[in-house]
Amino acid sequence: MSGFYLICFDVHHPKRLRKIANEMENFGNRVQRSVFECHLETAQLADLQQRLETLMEPVADQVRYYPLCGKDKQRIIVDGLGQVSADPDFHLV
Amino acid sequence: MSGFYLICFDVHHPKRLRKIANEMENFGNRVQRSVFECHLETAQLADLQQRLETLMEPVADQVRYYPLCGKDKQRIIVDGLGQVSADPDFHLV
Repeated sequence: MSGFYLICFDVHHPKRLRKIANEMENFGNRVQRSVFECHLETAQLADLQQRLETLMEPVADQVRYYPLCGKDKQRIIVDGLGQVSADPDFHLV
Repeated sequence: MSGFYLICFDVHHPKRLRKIANEMENFGNRVQRSVFECHLETAQLADLQQRLETLMEPVADQVRYYPLCGKDKQRIIVDGLGQVSADPDFHLV
């Protein structure tokens, strides 16, 4: 069963930032400049983590993975533009 | 009892961005440029939301509030710089 993850990154070099964002586009939905919402199986999360580790500079950059259970996901609040990513369409099969 | 919240904002005007970030500093720990980790009571969350609503432009900006239960918080992963905000020190009394 897939889990819902919020993934935020702080990358200080434009080229690395672009590469990381492009890779993230394969795994989920961009909701803010450096914030993605993803529905991932455990193996996909591990795969994504490995890919980003090769693209980032660990002493300069940062990627944070926040898992949200179903109950937490129901309590997400969005003020202003946008909404929470829907479940099925963004599930990678 | 306070809850753990991840709060991300996408604000396109530098002046509004500064004001929102400054307000956020009163409520939690900045972990990335536009991402804060906060331990908030329900009333504090409502207060923060109200303050940010007066500072943001709803048709242009966006603030996302992600609640994480204790179990989810244990599963946060940080790659590269930084770690997860500790509980007590950041709890507003």
